[in-house]
Amino acid sequence: MTKTMIGILGSTSYTGQELVRILARHPAASFAFLASRSNPAKRYCGIFPEMLGVCDEVLLSPDDAAGRDADCVFSCLPHALSAHHLAPFIARGIRVVDLSADFRIKDASAYARWYKAEHPDPARLAEAAYGLPERYRREIGAARICANPGCYATCVLLPLLPLLAHRGTTVESIIADSKSGVSGAGRTLKLSSHFVEANENISPYSVGRTHRHVVEMEQEMSLAAGAEVRMTFSPHVAPLNRGILSTIYFRCNRTAAECLDILREAYADEPFVRLRPPEDLPTVKGVAFTNYCDISVTGGGAGQPLIAVSAVDNLLKGASGQAVQNMNIMLGLKETEGLAG
Amino acid sequence: MTKTMIGILGSTSYTGQELVRILARHPAASFAFLASRSNPAKRYCGIFPEMLGVCDEVLLSPDDAAGRDADCVFSCLPHALSAHHLAPFIARGIRVVDLSADFRIKDASAYARWYKAEHPDPARLAEAAYGLPERYRREIGAARICANPGCYATCVLLPLLPLLAHRGTTVESIIADSKSGVSGAGRTLKLSSHFVEANENISPYSVGRTHRHVVEMEQEMSLAAGAEVRMTFSPHVAPLNRGILSTIYFRCNRTAAECLDILREAYADEPFVRLRPPEDLPTVKGVAFTNYCDISVTGGGAGQPLIAVSAVDNLLKGASGQAVQNMNIMLGLKETEGLAG
Amino acid sequence: MTKTMIGILGSTSYTGQELVRILARHPAASFAFLASRSNPAKRYCGIFPEMLGVCDEVLLSPDDAAGRDADCVFSCLPHALSAHHLAPFIARGIRVVDLSADFRIKDASAYARWYKAEHPDPARLAEAAYGLPERYRREIGAARICANPGCYATCVLLPLLPLLAHRGTTVESIIADSKSGVSGAGRTLKLSSHFVEANENISPYSVGRTHRHVVEMEQEMSLAAGAEVRMTFSPHVAPLNRGILSTIYFRCNRTAAECLDILREAYADEPFVRLRPPEDLPTVKGVAFTNYCDISVTGGGAGQPLIAVSAVDNLLKGASGQAVQNMNIMLGLKETEGLAG
Amino acid sequence: MTKTMIGILGSTSYTGQELVRILARHPAASFAFLASRSNPAKRYCGIFPEMLGVCDEVLLSPDDAAGRDADCVFSCLPHALSAHHLAPFIARGIRVVDLSADFRIKDASAYARWYKAEHPDPARLAEAAYGLPERYRREIGAARICANPGCYATCVLLPLLPLLAHRGTTVESIIADSKSGVSGAGRTLKLSSHFVEANENISPYSVGRTHRHVVEMEQEMSLAAGAEVRMTFSPHVAPLNRGILSTIYFRCNRTAAECLDILREAYADEPFVRLRPPEDLPTVKGVAFTNYCDISVTGGGAGQPLIAVSAVDNLLKGASGQAVQNMNIMLGLKETEGLAG
Repeated sequence: MTKTMIGILGSTSYTGQELVRILARHPAASFAFLASRSNPAKRYCGIFPEMLGVCDEVLLSPDDAAGRDADCVFSCLPHALSAHHLAPFIARGIRVVDLSADFRIKDASAYARWYKAEHPDPARLAEAAYGLPERYRREIGAARICANPGCYATCVLLPLLPLLAHRGTTVESIIADSKSGVSGAGRTLKLSSHFVEANENISPYSVGRTHRHVVEMEQEMSLAAGAEVRMTFSPHVAPLNRGILSTIYFRCNRTAAECLDILREAYADEPFVRLRPPEDLPTVKGVAFTNYCDISVTGGGAGQPLIAVSAVDNLLKGASGQAVQNMNIMLGLKETEGLAG
Repeated sequence: MTKTMIGILGSTSYTGQELVRILARHPAASFAFLASRSNPAKRYCGIFPEMLGVCDEVLLSPDDAAGRDADCVFSCLPHALSAHHLAPFIARGIRVVDLSADFRIKDASAYARWYKAEHPDPARLAEAAYGLPERYRREIGAARICANPGCYATCVLLPLLPLLAHRGTTVESIIADSKSGVSGAGRTLKLSSHFVEANENISPYSVGRTHRHVVEMEQEMSLAAGAEVRMTFSPHVAPLNRGILSTIYFRCNRTAAECLDILREAYADEPFVRLRPPEDLPTVKGVAFTNYCDISVTGGGAGQPLIAVSAVDNLLKGASGQAVQNMNIMLGLKETEGLAG
Repeated sequence: MTKTMIGILGSTSYTGQELVRILARHPAASFAFLASRSNPAKRYCGIFPEMLGVCDEVLLSPDDAAGRDADCVFSCLPHALSAHHLAPFIARGIRVVDLSADFRIKDASAYARWYKAEHPDPARLAEAAYGLPERYRREIGAARICANPGCYATCVLLPLLPLLAHRGTTVESIIADSKSGVSGAGRTLKLSSHFVEANENISPYSVGRTHRHVVEMEQEMSLAAGAEVRMTFSPHVAPLNRGILSTIYFRCNRTAAECLDILREAYADEPFVRLRPPEDLPTVKGVAFTNYCDISVTGGGAGQPLIAVSAVDNLLKGASGQAVQNMNIMLGLKETEGLAG
Repeated sequence: MTKTMIGILGSTSYTGQELVRILARHPAASFAFLASRSNPAKRYCGIFPEMLGVCDEVLLSPDDAAGRDADCVFSCLPHALSAHHLAPFIARGIRVVDLSADFRIKDASAYARWYKAEHPDPARLAEAAYGLPERYRREIGAARICANPGCYATCVLLPLLPLLAHRGTTVESIIADSKSGVSGAGRTLKLSSHFVEANENISPYSVGRTHRHVVEMEQEMSLAAGAEVRMTFSPHVAPLNRGILSTIYFRCNRTAAECLDILREAYADEPFVRLRPPEDLPTVKGVAFTNYCDISVTGGGAGQPLIAVSAVDNLLKGASGQAVQNMNIMLGLKETEGLAG
């Protein structure tokens, strides 16, 4: 069988490493190149000793990679840099999956406002598919550019979008309280990711409407609802490596059980969404090291809001697992290939 | 100086151990007795090796302790058992601080409903002071029975009570999302506290209106507001030993800055409440191993709710530290004695 | 393709769960039955919610499983029980992999002494192969009974056996200092595995010559050396879920570099042993969630001992990964099947 | 009472913070100044939010601090810088406790070899007392300069020195295998202290005879034995904030019980050393947040080495707690002041 040739930009980030891990055992994939700004010319397993024998590729710089051929190129570069380095591949008709935010926000001026930078490639914003297969499978399959969603966005949108899109169901006063492992903050050195600072600690940050995933979530919720939707979002860092748990409060004209039914129906054929009963709420442990998003709905009654609980592994369904799911869709491979168990 | 003689029932729980730790270095306290249902006749440092040389007392059974004299008796026994074993001390006029829920709920029928048991001593419910010194300092000073608040209740009530009690300020649609360390679940063996289950995990439990601290929080919030207040409460377990962070959402006719001012004024002279600016939100690390409750308020605008963030060490301000603070008040000692830094 | 039918006794232990996880995605395997003493008639994903959609089998009791057919039966039952429940399968000629200690110790009297119980099936001790493929691949391939090694034994033996077996090389004064994650203590509730006790702690236990893996390691080291070998062994529990790191001190007539060469040669074709240079010593992170054993050798000079460092994931190469490796060998499958990356 | 005025150089390191924490509640101490190279002119609680209300001092630069008066100055600066910035205080007759290695090694050429730098103040090496009170209490009391021992050195020397110094007892073939929490690596950002790298990991480093504490430990062991003593030392990082556990192997002409007796006698009057029976070996949890060093001895028999196990909190008895103990001795205060429980 001819293998699909894969290139990865930003391959030494945590999401990059997770991509390499998945693709190294993906039966239909082979590496065309791995690139890294910070570590060009080093071997991959010299950066990540655990990858010895799993991936021994020599790293290229993004510039050296620019001329290489591939069937699909992933980018784990930071925003702005990502669209810049993906441009030559897109121009040659190579399918790309961008794990940065560069192609997520349809409105270039909103991008500029939230990301404090002019969009590097505004002409291509319109053609990018938002890489949430449960909502945009067809668009992803046809797209040249797939904008892989943010980790928090994936976790918060999956329980809400089918309710927002459901005729006759109203969803209001949305508050998402998310708890994330430390890998969500990346591999860059910073005091808040120092072991002694993060361990035995829980820290809120960017609460309210200041986190960049707010604009992305509101865009997708508004599209689903066919009307402008606003939310409050509070991310927190908890002392674990990976995983996000979101506890989402909202007002609704349905009961928790009815919402769960709507979600069950919407996700009946989805390989990576699991609905749970309220007596068995999602946990991070339940999804860690898998590509699943687990969801349940409870609460309500006595004038109180409903509570959706959802969980993903931020490096898998929240990033690299979903990116490979998107690649599988774009290249006509089996959607679950390389992502089982 | 004559030392205050202290008895502790349930002294081999985590809150019991923390009491022993504080009181062993409290300059005005000495142990009259330490009791334990599960470990009578063992030495305290045989149960907790780390207490060797700190506390070498021999444990009594609660029944053997019943006839002992003391100036103050703490109980860390489970509810129902606690009021039962405290009764002989109360009858003899000894001041007691009950860390169980037995004297927190003024309404015996509400107690019966939430705790699935008839109240063991309903006649004394009325005289018990709710042991939140920032609100009931005078009542605690005069009381024979102090009902030490629940850990979540302390963390959630301290930011809300002054706002609820403030004339002209309305607080509505209260949702408290709390994240707790594992010691909050006690020292009893259960699968959810097994290291491998709790580590690298975040789990919601008893979300909505099912956790027993809801009845206690609603009682105190209603008393402060002078009207019935209802709430949604979602506790979560996170992989750390100690500490609670609460992210509290509410609708209010004040801005975050105005709420912070109300709290600053209410707590201006409080030794154990610290107000923080929104750019420096409370964290668990900020209060761990201290008796502080840290509080800030942020959010709001664009029709969104305000967000109060509060943090306590569940074993100190959330339990044993506050219990000693209450004892200091009841016995006329300096309120901060034994609780510094 | 006809699938290999697998039975698992003790399938709700941590090693049982890991077996189920591996075999659920093993391309050549299918479940004949999963059994559990404690949870008969429950669904597997009712015990482990994270296995929903991965393994929904209904559990049998070991007795009900006894009559079932299978191509290979694994046992994760405790010692003594394990040989007892495996007996009917062995009698019918079904290949078995025993993860308990029952078939590891060739000498039934030594077994009785160390395991405080008469051996339940001494007549079959002689025919069991010790399941360390790197040393006994041929015997395992021919055996009806495979005694899967202990987790510590795997980690300590892999660096030492080739040196002990090497003509002209003498290895003496062996001290193995091992650090293990908490899953090594199993899923049974005990205070030492309580999160609050194990977290932020490091504890030695059974140090010297008291841990049961000593008899197993000395048996295999003596067989390799052709002479009686004795050792000191100090296991420790550290606050992580999985993984063992062993720091092994020994006197040798070779330098560290020479020992590393001997190991490189011995393991040149081994798929699951990786030799590392002394400047890149093994770590737990380097092998976690893989079936690798990483090894290096350093130290010596100035009359000081050599130091071998080795690491395994206690649930994979130290237990269930190695068990599947053994199954693959016994059934003529590709040895690495189901164990990649 | 006149308070002892304290200055601290390097006060924003982890050991500096711990010093501030202890001294802020030390009944006889008050701050003359806190200095920091990296954060001059900031408030202390701006660097460490948890210190709000505990220590609100404004930080000086080390140069600005140089002219300040004090009764005792601590330095937590890195080696070489430390002796440099302490010099003006020493010159004015102010007692200093140096937590760096600058005054630990008596031999300036050995210092130069191990620390890759000329000693900044060799003329004063001879007068410095090695700050292990259990061995040098008298010298510390008389000294102007106290060289506070390394954290590993404290943990390894306390169990060994009385045996090495004991007439008729021979101690040979010493191997110390130490496991440390991450705070031992300091607050400086580095990949190995990144939460995601350190969590769920155990890593050996500088094993054999390459760690700088080797020269310090060998100096003190040789002095105690009256003969040159050599050792092998293997430090490891484990995923916890604080604490060191050392498992120390040695050949001895005494049994474990006899060694324990020698230690019991040597430390009979020591407030911060606790001897434990072999069935209750020291653990990190047993000493965390205390100034204790816990010690036991076991092993031996059948030609095997003895095993001493010792544990300290690396930030307390291994650094700042011991530093305050030394200050108490130097200034004639009660030795345990500020260090209880």
